[in-house]
Parts: sequence; C-alpha cells; structure tokens
Amino acid sequence: MKSIVEIAKSAGIDEQHLELYGKYKAKLSDELWEQVKDRPDGKLILVTAMNPNPAGAGKTLTTIGLSQSLNYLGKKTIAALREPSLGPCMGIKGGATGSGQAQILPADEINLHFTGDIHAITAAHNLLAAMIDNHIFHGNPRGLNPKKIVWKRAMDMNDRALRNIVVGMGDGNGMTREDGFMITTASEIMAILCLSENLADLRERLNHIIIGYDFDDQPVRAEEINAVEAMCVLLKEAIKPNLVQTIEGTPVIIHGGPFANIAHGCSSVIGTKMALKLADYVVTEAGFGADLGAEKFFDIKCRKAGLTPSAAVVVITVRSLKFNGGVKVPDLAVENLSALEKGFENVKRHLENLQKFGVPAVVAINHFATDTQAEIDAVIALCQAAGAEAALSKVWAEGGAGGVELAEKVTRAAERPSSFRFLYEEDLSIKDKIETVVKEVYRGSGVVFTPLALKTMQKIEEMGMSHLPVCMAKTPYSFTDRADLLGAPVDFTIQVSEVRISAGAGFIVALTGSLVTMPGLPKKPAAESLYVDEDGQVIGLS
Amino acid sequence: MKSIVEIAKSAGIDEQHLELYGKYKAKLSDELWEQVKDRPDGKLILVTAMNPNPAGAGKTLTTIGLSQSLNYLGKKTIAALREPSLGPCMGIKGGATGSGQAQILPADEINLHFTGDIHAITAAHNLLAAMIDNHIFHGNPRGLNPKKIVWKRAMDMNDRALRNIVVGMGDGNGMTREDGFMITTASEIMAILCLSENLADLRERLNHIIIGYDFDDQPVRAEEINAVEAMCVLLKEAIKPNLVQTIEGTPVIIHGGPFANIAHGCSSVIGTKMALKLADYVVTEAGFGADLGAEKFFDIKCRKAGLTPSAAVVVITVRSLKFNGGVKVPDLAVENLSALEKGFENVKRHLENLQKFGVPAVVAINHFATDTQAEIDAVIALCQAAGAEAALSKVWAEGGAGGVELAEKVTRAAERPSSFRFLYEEDLSIKDKIETVVKEVYRGSGVVFTPLALKTMQKIEEMGMSHLPVCMAKTPYSFTDRADLLGAPVDFTIQVSEVRISAGAGFIVALTGSLVTMPGLPKKPAAESLYVDEDGQVIGLS
Repeated sequence: MKSIVEIAKSAGIDEQHLELYGKYKAKLSDELWEQVKDRPDGKLILVTAMNPNPAGAGKTLTTIGLSQSLNYLGKKTIAALREPSLGPCMGIKGGATGSGQAQILPADEINLHFTGDIHAITAAHNLLAAMIDNHIFHGNPRGLNPKKIVWKRAMDMNDRALRNIVVGMGDGNGMTREDGFMITTASEIMAILCLSENLADLRERLNHIIIGYDFDDQPVRAEEINAVEAMCVLLKEAIKPNLVQTIEGTPVIIHGGPFANIAHGCSSVIGTKMALKLADYVVTEAGFGADLGAEKFFDIKCRKAGLTPSAAVVVITVRSLKFNGGVKVPDLAVENLSALEKGFENVKRHLENLQKFGVPAVVAINHFATDTQAEIDAVIALCQAAGAEAALSKVWAEGGAGGVELAEKVTRAAERPSSFRFLYEEDLSIKDKIETVVKEVYRGSGVVFTPLALKTMQKIEEMGMSHLPVCMAKTPYSFTDRADLLGAPVDFTIQVSEVRISAGAGFIVALTGSLVTMPGLPKKPAAESLYVDEDGQVIGLS
Repeated sequence: MKSIVEIAKSAGIDEQHLELYGKYKAKLSDELWEQVKDRPDGKLILVTAMNPNPAGAGKTLTTIGLSQSLNYLGKKTIAALREPSLGPCMGIKGGATGSGQAQILPADEINLHFTGDIHAITAAHNLLAAMIDNHIFHGNPRGLNPKKIVWKRAMDMNDRALRNIVVGMGDGNGMTREDGFMITTASEIMAILCLSENLADLRERLNHIIIGYDFDDQPVRAEEINAVEAMCVLLKEAIKPNLVQTIEGTPVIIHGGPFANIAHGCSSVIGTKMALKLADYVVTEAGFGADLGAEKFFDIKCRKAGLTPSAAVVVITVRSLKFNGGVKVPDLAVENLSALEKGFENVKRHLENLQKFGVPAVVAINHFATDTQAEIDAVIALCQAAGAEAALSKVWAEGGAGGVELAEKVTRAAERPSSFRFLYEEDLSIKDKIETVVKEVYRGSGVVFTPLALKTMQKIEEMGMSHLPVCMAKTPYSFTDRADLLGAPVDFTIQVSEVRISAGAGFIVALTGSLVTMPGLPKKPAAESLYVDEDGQVIGLS
C-alpha cells in the first residue's frame, strides 16, 4: 500500500485537504469541493449486472478492476464505491471490498469500522428514536400517536431477534409499544446521506423525515421534536467522502451504502460528484441487477443529483447465466451450454432496458476458474448476436491488465454522445410510475396493488408528495417478484404489497412481497471464522 | 491546538508509533509499548472527590488542570482520562472534557465519536447478543436456558424505552423472551477493555464472560458459542490508547470509560501503564466520590494491574460542602458558613479513609466564582484543623498557573515513601469483603443481604469465583445507600439487593438499592441545544 497522502497527490488532492484516519484512509475536506467544483466533470460509468446467482456476480470486483484497467490505459480514473456494512460481514457475506487483484485496501478496516460513518448514522438514527419516545414520555405535546410511529431503531448487525420487539416495558420506562430494529444500511438516514449535496441539504432532508402520525393522522416530522440539529452534529464527519486505494494504487472514493431494496443502493452523491471533478473517468456501481440497481441509479440518483452517465457495464458470469438457465447452485461449476444459452435471455432483456435509458452498454464477462473455453466462446457469440460489445474480464486474477479489452470498449462507448433520459417523468401518478417500471423494465403485464398500498398512495397524494420518484423493493434474483422465476419471464403481474414514503430521502418505496430490513445470522456465521492473528492482522475478511 | 505529532514528540513518542485520526487525535501503537515497557514508572496521582453535589465536583477539570500545573512546574506529566460516552452528552450532562482553561481538545470530537472505541465496544457487545439468540434459533446445541440469559444488548444512547423489552416476536424471528439494553459504558466489555493488559488478555477475559446458564443451571461462557475471536476483531483498534492534548498542550491519554457503579469507573490499565512509562507524573481520576471511586481504583484497578499510587487529591467545592451540610441545589450560591462546616464532616471521613489505604492525600478546593472569601478561608482552616494539606485551585479560570500551589503540595506528598495497601484481602468471603468496605469506608454498622443476593453469592462460591474483588454499586451522593443522607452519617446499614458476577472483567458487583444501567433523557435534552454552525463547528458541547 502507498500512503494515502501519495494516492491523494496522484488524484490532484493536496495534503491540506485530507483528514487522515491512519496512514491509508482519509476523509476529504469541504474546502476541497470549493476548490474543484467549477471544473468540468469526467465521464461517469455505471457498473451494473444481470440478475445475480446467490453468490453474486462480481460487480464490486469488476468496478474496482475496471478502474484499474482504465488507469492502466492512461485514463485518469477514480472508483466510487459503497461502504460495506458490518452486519453482513458477520453473517454470510464476508467482506465487500473485492478480492484477488481487484480489491480495495485496507480491506479489513474498510469492512469493519472504517472511518465510523455507519456508526455515526446508527447513532443519529437512534438519537431520533430515543427523542421520539422521550417526547411522548414528557407529555407528548405534539400529540404523536404511539400506534403510528414509523421511525424504528437501527443497528449495524444481523440480529433477527430485534426485528419485532416491544419497548417501554416496566414502570418509569415510557409508553409500552411495538417497535423493531432495522440494519443501519436500511435507515432512511443512510439514503439521505447518500443523496445530500452538502450539510445544509442533509439538514433539510433530516427535517423532512416523517417519524409518525398524530392523532389527526397528520404526518409528524423530525424537525418538530428538535432532533435534527443534534443529528447533524453526529453526522458532520460522516458526510465527508472517504479516500482509499485499490491494490494497484487507483484512488477510490468510498462513501455511504444504502440497501438496494428499501433504498436506492448507490454510493453517495457527494462522493460521486467529487470523483467526477478529480478524474476523467469515474467507475461506480449500483446494488443488485440492472432491473433494480441501474433503474434506481438513473431514475433516482442521476435525476436528483443532475448526473449524466456516459456508459454502463453489465457484469455477467457463466455461473449466473447457467443459474438463470435453471441450474441449481451446487451444479454451477459443471459445463452446460444449453442452460447458458437459455440464461442469456436474462442478459438480453437488461441490454434492451439500458437502451431505453439511452445509455450505451458493454458486457463484462467476469471470468471464473470453472468456466470452460466452450462456455466463454458461447457467451461471446451470444453477445455478438445480441449486438452488444463484450469482453472477458480477468481482473480477479490479473488486476488492471486483465481488463484492458473491457476498458477499451468502455471508453469507446463513453465517447459516443450521450442520449441519457429517465424512464418516467416525476409528475406521473405514483401508480403510473410503478406501472411504467414494471412494464418497461421488468416486462410484467401489470401491477396488483393491495388495499393497504392503495390507501397509502392516496395518503401520499393528499400530503402532496406524489411527485417523488419510486424506489422499487423487489427480489434481486428475478425480473418478477418471485425469486424462483429466472431468465426472462413473461405474462406475470407484480404485487405491490405496501407503499412507504421516505420524505427525507425523497422517494416513494414500493414493496413487492415481504421485505426484511434486518437480516439474520446463518447457522455458522462468518463471525465464527474471523480472528486476529499473532501479527495483529485480521484473518477471514477481504 | 498543536499537531498531535508535536504533542507526541513532547512526550517522547516518535511519529512512527502514532496512528493518526485527523490532525489532533492519534492511537498509540503496540510497538510503542514494546519500546518503553522496561522503563521505570512515573508517579501515579489519583484525583478523587468528596461526595458530589448533583452538578459534580470538578474532578475531570482538576485532573486536567493539575496535569497542566505539574508541567508548569517543570514536571513531565501526562493526564490519563476516561472517554466520554455519547449518550449523556445528548442527555443532561453535556460534554465531559473539562472546561475553561482546563479542558482537553478537540472537545467536540472527543465527546462525539472520537476514535470509535465506544462504537466498537457496542458492536462487539451486540455481536455476542446476536450470536446468543442465533445459537438458540439454530437448535441451541449448548442448551442455553432462554429464561436465564444474562447478556443483554447495548447502545451508547440514553433511551429509557429500551430498558425492558421483549425480543424475538413474530414468525421466524427466534425465541420470544424478555431482554433489555444497557448504555455501552455499562457493558462488561467496557470494564474488560479497561482492565486488560493487551489483546491476548482481552481475549481471555472475553472468553470468560458468562452469557447465561444452561438447563442444569451451569454457567455458559462467551467462548462456548464461538463469538470471542470476532469480538477481538472488532476491538483490535479500540484497545489501543488514544493521545490528545489539553488546552495548554499537556499530553493526555484518554482511553475507556466504564460506569462507576456497575463497574470500577477508571480509565484503561493499558493507557495508565503507557502514561507511567512516558512521564514522571501521571494524573488520573476515578468516577464519583472517594467512597466508590478511590476504593475501586485501589482495590480493583491497582490490585489487578499491579499499580502503586503515590498520592491522592480530594476535590472539594464550597458548593459540595454546603450541599453536604443540607443546602438545596438552588441555594448553593448563597454564603452559608455553618452548612459548610457541617458538610466538611464528609471530607474528613474521606481523608481518614485514604489513610487506610496508606495513600497521602491533598485537598483541592475547586474554586467557583460564587465562593465568598469567608467561605474559602473557612474551608482552608477546616482542612488545617483536620491535619490535611489543602490548596485553592483556580485551574478553570487560570489553567496550569491556577494550580501551582496544589501541584507543589501534590509533588511533596508523592515524594513521601508509599505505604499503599488494599482494604481487604481477596481470599475473604464475598460477604466479608462487602462488609469490610461498608464498615471501613462507608462506616455503616452492617450489611443486610436480600435472599436473592445470598443465593447468588452461594452460587458464585460454588463456581469457584468468590476470590474476586467486589465492585460496589451505590449512590454517589451519600456514604449510605440513600442519596438523601448527606455529610457523614452514622448508625445505618447497607442493603445489598442483588449480586452479579462479571467473570470476564474479574469482579463481583454488589448492588445496593436499584441500579439503572440505561439512563433516560430529560424533558429538554442537551441534544436540543447542539448544532453545527456555519463554519462547521459544533456548538453546545465542551
């Protein structure tokens, strides 16, 4: 690893604009933004994916590798990534910092407490929760209906026992009521931090958070219980983007990490904009496959932040193709050309969808050791037949050098004039926006709304917030709302079971099926395999 | 503020041993300890106090000021302090970093997330909690009795609604059972971190934590559910002491901050030992008055860490004297010589107690603007009559220069040969240890144990852990277990309502009366007065 001061220098950042966290991590000062804000933007490349198999597609890996490959080609490039959440590191997932020759460093620290951003969000979230119950305890002057408090508590841990709880039991401990914890990445504050332009914007968004409803069923906002200024105090460092490096010394801005279901799943606007001022190319990613991640990246993040993407990379794997062709997870390493061809229907649909946004797409075939040559040849032929540029990416094994062909194709795509457009206009009704996404992106025949969802949509219209974009919460495995319908299903409807308003973040969440915002731990949690070795190094995370 | 690199240099610490957190905070590397561990120790000065009035006595202020005064006299001095907890900063207390000309900097960052130590402890605590419920969820192979889980959850927030809760409600969310949150400073992990010598010792202590009891009523320890290695991963940075500075540039090691009731209330052994190797004088403090703080500092921290204190400073205030003489809080600013004289009985008892530990004591009269000259003269005369050295301390207004007389008297006391001894031997029975503290320090006539306390003591004997020192949990306002019995009460008994074992920290907690380990917020929380100003500075914390 090079010192972060040196990495910063390579990105044109003077040491005075760094707030160091050890030798290899730094926050970027507010003054840096003032210095660079009038520069022209670099080109923004979105890394997205086909519907993944349960082990993932390698999107973060490809984002990191591609940024290295672009630098390898002499293009000044910065990767803009999400911060890993601690909870999943202790659960199934392990770390979220790439791997092999395409990873960001120091991996263990980034995966653990990093620069404290997520802890700060947890604290701000729970301060608001504590102040809500305290408001009721001390006489409830605002008239909050304790049965209609929608602001829950948060923790960056996978802890199913906290999903549904009863708080305030016992004498002197306030109102007894049902409540629950979500994982911090699902907190609206995480989404807010990632969509804010600066601290003033953050404050304004926090003010707008709806914490619950009063006895007249009118919304009560965070600003009404005087919690927001102290929340800003807790978040004033968390809002500054973090600088780290890849294993090859490419600068990486890593900042924020909202869920890709209940939220939009992209790293922060502040971090992305900073990167665009500092580099010719910025490679960023969005959570899940393109049906969720890319759509929300375009329709929420780009729309709200005024960003124009120049190209998209669709990460596919032979494994994911076979999974989408019906192969079960234990058999994914076995050659299966017919399943692969069948699964490719999934990729074709994503490619067509990206055209609807006017964004040129390149397919990255993320190489696995178990891929056979026949399979790779077949995938490349399928991409060509679909009219898509494709490149085999060996960044895991070879780092930047393993993604040169991909990088070349991406730069050519990005140099074409952009015709980026949104999928829908905001002034459509909520119902029409949801139906547009379902019909145009998922290719469903229609949407079934539950009475509860219809009632909430009505309420949002009444509150004058129906102009906000929609944030779909759906299984990542399928275009449909059923995880087992793989490939490119047709003739299905999507059920919207519930609608929620994230008034501070500025979007309307449409839940399809049930949504768990607090994961559990598996029978053998990843935590059981972690340890600190005799040299003080963390083993088991990367 | 000087850069922390410069402050470190003044303490003889090379930059290579610093892990910087911004320009003004650093963690000290493990290698530094290896380099200095064979040096002779400096002199250890404990700052303690009479029983405080509800606004506190100014112990932290005096600790900081005295360290500055000693440096002013040319004695190389480091202060060793506790880390503030975020929860109380949002509640009544505001910050905990001193004030006026005797404060540590950067106050806002130290009071907020600092270097993330407390967040790391929260995470480790809740990982263990999540793994307990997950263990039961996945078949409960160890046979944990869900009704006898003693490991609760933790949060660094004042949130009374979380004191008593029900977790695991709803299908798929595990065992429904009663639980609760404590504030993180009350976590046994905080006490463990503060008593550990190094990471290996930390691991061993975490292994010994009793998380609950099995169906045969045998203790189940953290090591039995494979949680400890991952907890060490989460704590590997938190165990390193932090370096900051006072407003006059005196180096301060600030590390750990356990409650002074359910735990021993002192900063970390690692930090204290490091400071003793780097300075000629180390000024440290212990929570609450000398009846709790000094006794536990001597009998738990010094005993376990092999530390020998050279002198104690008893902080008194004219206000606290009048409070102990029966004056109510609103009237504390009014001159009242008879109440002052009556309240001085409280100081006399503390001074006698310190003699029992063989530690020379100096009285520091922490000056307030409302003190009249007649009151100050009276206090000095009372100290002289009691045979105690005393000095007026004006460190709040004047910084180090305002405590020169105090510092001179402290150095003279510390140069006398030490005859430090513990109050009791560890091999006494639990009952005898508690009775010794009550009779010798509090001056009660005896102890009444509830049947529950007796049963637990019996169980601790059976588990072979009765040799551990006792950690008294008692109101700080009185020598008795009743907050309203001020001064120097006689003819009272102490009721021990409950006994708990902190097997990892290594002490037996005796609870007198009820103990709240999760504070609440007041009607107008301090959080409502905090804000970030236009220059990005936090207003309302110091």
